Amino acid sequence: MRRLLLTGATLAMVGMTATAEDAPIVHDSEYYILKSQHAEQWQKDNAEVDAKIASFKEANGGKPPNILYILVDDIGFGDMGIPELNAVRGISTPNINKLSDEGLRMSRMYTEPSCTPTRVAFSTGRLPVRMGMGDTTVDIAGFGLPAEEVTLAELLKEEGYNTVHVGKWHMGDIAESWAMNQGFDWAGHPIHQQGQLTIYSDSAVKEQVSVGIKDFDDRFVLDEFFRPNPSAMVLGIEGTAGGPIREVHMEPGERWNAQKYDEMNQRYQDQTLEHMRDLAGKDEPFFLQYWPLIPLDNTREGRNGPESPNGGLYADKLQLLDKWVGDILAEMETLGIADNTIVVLMGDNGHFTKYSPQSGFTSMVFRGGKGATTEGGIRVDAFIRWPGMIGADTIANNIIHVSDLYTTLARMAGADGHIPRDRLVDGVDQTAALLIDETKGRRDHVIVYSIDSPKAIIKDHLKLNLPGPGQSPILADFFDVYRDTHEKYPVSTEVGAWGGKEFVRILERHMGRKQMYPDTPPAFGKPYEGIENLRPETQAAVEAFMLKRASVQQ
Amino acid sequence: MRRLLLTGATLAMVGMTATAEDAPIVHDSEYYILKSQHAEQWQKDNAEVDAKIASFKEANGGKPPNILYILVDDIGFGDMGIPELNAVRGISTPNINKLSDEGLRMSRMYTEPSCTPTRVAFSTGRLPVRMGMGDTTVDIAGFGLPAEEVTLAELLKEEGYNTVHVGKWHMGDIAESWAMNQGFDWAGHPIHQQGQLTIYSDSAVKEQVSVGIKDFDDRFVLDEFFRPNPSAMVLGIEGTAGGPIREVHMEPGERWNAQKYDEMNQRYQDQTLEHMRDLAGKDEPFFLQYWPLIPLDNTREGRNGPESPNGGLYADKLQLLDKWVGDILAEMETLGIADNTIVVLMGDNGHFTKYSPQSGFTSMVFRGGKGATTEGGIRVDAFIRWPGMIGADTIANNIIHVSDLYTTLARMAGADGHIPRDRLVDGVDQTAALLIDETKGRRDHVIVYSIDSPKAIIKDHLKLNLPGPGQSPILADFFDVYRDTHEKYPVSTEVGAWGGKEFVRILERHMGRKQMYPDTPPAFGKPYEGIENLRPETQAAVEAFMLKRASVQQ
Repeated sequence: MRRLLLTGATLAMVGMTATAEDAPIVHDSEYYILKSQHAEQWQKDNAEVDAKIASFKEANGGKPPNILYILVDDIGFGDMGIPELNAVRGISTPNINKLSDEGLRMSRMYTEPSCTPTRVAFSTGRLPVRMGMGDTTVDIAGFGLPAEEVTLAELLKEEGYNTVHVGKWHMGDIAESWAMNQGFDWAGHPIHQQGQLTIYSDSAVKEQVSVGIKDFDDRFVLDEFFRPNPSAMVLGIEGTAGGPIREVHMEPGERWNAQKYDEMNQRYQDQTLEHMRDLAGKDEPFFLQYWPLIPLDNTREGRNGPESPNGGLYADKLQLLDKWVGDILAEMETLGIADNTIVVLMGDNGHFTKYSPQSGFTSMVFRGGKGATTEGGIRVDAFIRWPGMIGADTIANNIIHVSDLYTTLARMAGADGHIPRDRLVDGVDQTAALLIDETKGRRDHVIVYSIDSPKAIIKDHLKLNLPGPGQSPILADFFDVYRDTHEKYPVSTEVGAWGGKEFVRILERHMGRKQMYPDTPPAFGKPYEGIENLRPETQAAVEAFMLKRASVQQ
Repeated sequence: MRRLLLTGATLAMVGMTATAEDAPIVHDSEYYILKSQHAEQWQKDNAEVDAKIASFKEANGGKPPNILYILVDDIGFGDMGIPELNAVRGISTPNINKLSDEGLRMSRMYTEPSCTPTRVAFSTGRLPVRMGMGDTTVDIAGFGLPAEEVTLAELLKEEGYNTVHVGKWHMGDIAESWAMNQGFDWAGHPIHQQGQLTIYSDSAVKEQVSVGIKDFDDRFVLDEFFRPNPSAMVLGIEGTAGGPIREVHMEPGERWNAQKYDEMNQRYQDQTLEHMRDLAGKDEPFFLQYWPLIPLDNTREGRNGPESPNGGLYADKLQLLDKWVGDILAEMETLGIADNTIVVLMGDNGHFTKYSPQSGFTSMVFRGGKGATTEGGIRVDAFIRWPGMIGADTIANNIIHVSDLYTTLARMAGADGHIPRDRLVDGVDQTAALLIDETKGRRDHVIVYSIDSPKAIIKDHLKLNLPGPGQSPILADFFDVYRDTHEKYPVSTEVGAWGGKEFVRILERHMGRKQMYPDTPPAFGKPYEGIENLRPETQAAVEAFMLKRASVQQ
């Protein structure tokens, strides 16, 4: 266990005493500033939260709650849970709207700007940059989430939970990164993402969703490894913790297409229901993670026509997903687990506006989409339902970062004692904000990274786009995200001169803390190693990748 | 009565027979195309609507419903009625949200892009361009709404309603245009608008809300009439139909300022409550029109500090207005008139983004604000409550233009028989859409004017920015307003080549119909004539204006 050590100056500034008797979780610098200002309130609230959780457990036969976590791909803010905006968009998500009515909307939920980093932040409670996982790969890459990371599934497993993951994963193509090796008793997931599954597929190439991938004259092209062959990459795998891992649903020589993608989606939905039934019958509580691949779908193959007034490729599939969510929630009622299960449903980042308007989605309430550090990239619809514990049809407008769910859900499950104390954990405990309406929560800021670079800092309702090298922070663009959701009108008169520098100091403290807890690289390895039934074309693709990797060292 | 006459070609095209036995209301061309396609359904629905209205009347002692119409200035879509977006914005409008829960949201309510034209369209059921009222004046102008227009108040008065108008008016500075001369038994309203009341006032000049108005060195400036003196213009007037009209709350020599604006707003709120109490006690049904001036307010004078988390100048006042709306709705309960009164509350056009972000409001869900023909300029929050007649917590996603309320409210009050048949009425009867959920309503398009020029055509979910002179409609920008609420990604592949020309033909039919029913000019006259107590400085201002008008004819 590493002792909390701050420089004398910093200690004096935040008025903090560095004791480690109760082995506190190690957080980033701003947390200690807030803590020094709210210590008394937090202590009081903690006691109330403890009592509330204890009383739930008692009423639940001594067991902590089950957790169902549904993470929806590339859905920005406003498309789920608000009937008025459903109407604006020409879609209908009645089941998710009902879930919203039965639970709490986290209206300032911040994610990372892309799939992989958001999933990493949720799973580890840490900023993806801390272990080099801020980027999103679309091909064979030979790296992933390190085994040393302690995932939420691992915390819960240690607390006695049964754990299952179904659906998208996208945290690496090496064995140690996969769900069955990261805390899940059973997992079924693709290795890569919808680039492989829906954009480079034969069906999509035919529809020219992407140009230049296969339909060109290659007589003057030498490099045979350059173009991806999505069918040769591993598609879906399944396996148990410590057991064999096998690729499913692909035979040697088979090509990937839209129909297989549809079947994969249906399989994940079915597996979610099957595993939920199985888990509900066991003595232990469960953690079931369902990360659907739809609404992302980039082809018209297999479609009869528009299924929503909107008619967009993603919009229609969101309606299908909504139906599936409805089926899952109905099954929970049937199984009698609706009241003792926490359900969290949220988007992972903003809309993939690159595919506007075919997708049917563009940024609406906020500016920008997936990949952007504007609010439209990182604010999502997010709901949590815990009957009797969290108020129905309520809103928490506290700033919450997706990494906070790691710490918060662990706390709700009584597993926060297993959170490692030897590393910096970014996720703070927001249980009081959700359970007893603690006014400000325990976070008033977010440092927004794009891959490995901090790009913006949000504090309260203000947002600073960080100045680049040699640019004065006094002149950097400041936005008021309440007044100006599209970040079009920089605020200058009131907070500019003061705030620019003060905001940059938040970053300086964050960076200073990295000297104690440095960022580390991701895990590297041989792609797909450990899969029992690798197809010959996949073996060839791996060899090609290894040759490319080795070319650096020639 | 003018007979419906269309050219043979047009008649053949729409399959319509032009009979005038039942003296139908005269509409624009597209109406007849829809009618030819839905005649049977509409007839069936009309019968159902008639029965429903008759049964209300019977239960209400033989009386049609009261009508309370609240028109809020410069509030775009999404800031009222949706708690989730309240949170995004950092404001709170609980009373209006409750009204929304108790009634129906017209989620595709289209207004005109500015104050005057929207108010004219609502009051007359006609596009403002038809009588030259498409523009918004901010100074003494010597013209206004003609006496020949038949307002909704006049229709209702003819049907036996008592009628009162309180608050903003802004349809002219000549006597025939004012509310007490346009169908209201009693009216209290300013002549002009918040430019005079909040931007050119001494308080605002001190705060430099506008620059160059008074704080400049005038030693080299000759023209003494050029700059507005808002204190010399008439402020608030009051009067009864046919009775004397007096300016109130201003003494000769007195200056207008922020405090007087606050007092004026409070007075209109108080008068609304007073008149409602009075009207509720009478035998006849009432039409009470309350057009508040706030949330518009451009100075900090008289404020203690932010009253909302947002803190913007308009945002704070919207919260005050919400409280006032709550007071009115509560008073309706006390008076026992909540169940037999139709309440309509809506914005008049998008946000005045010129004052972003001081106002606290920018366009959020849609692109653009006041003055723009993008959706953000012309789509507003709009609610209608009629207990037992219109479903609570419902949404109608039909296209409705503000002029439709003229015809629709007249129908609900049984006053549609008084709608003049000698002119073209743009407002169509949407009663079936509101009362019995007629799927598509009776309008599938809007021709969007800016002042006197058609700029865009919306049909269903598609929107064409009309090509300028010499521009090919095939290349004009087309948007899908479901998929792309910010009108950023022109649609081309599916509807461009066909739709561009077809949309332009809608305009051609609209223009063709103007040859039968030509646009006419507004009424011209001497400003303020008929006000009993004109101040000397006002008389001087009028003389200056008349001199300027005469200068054209020198």
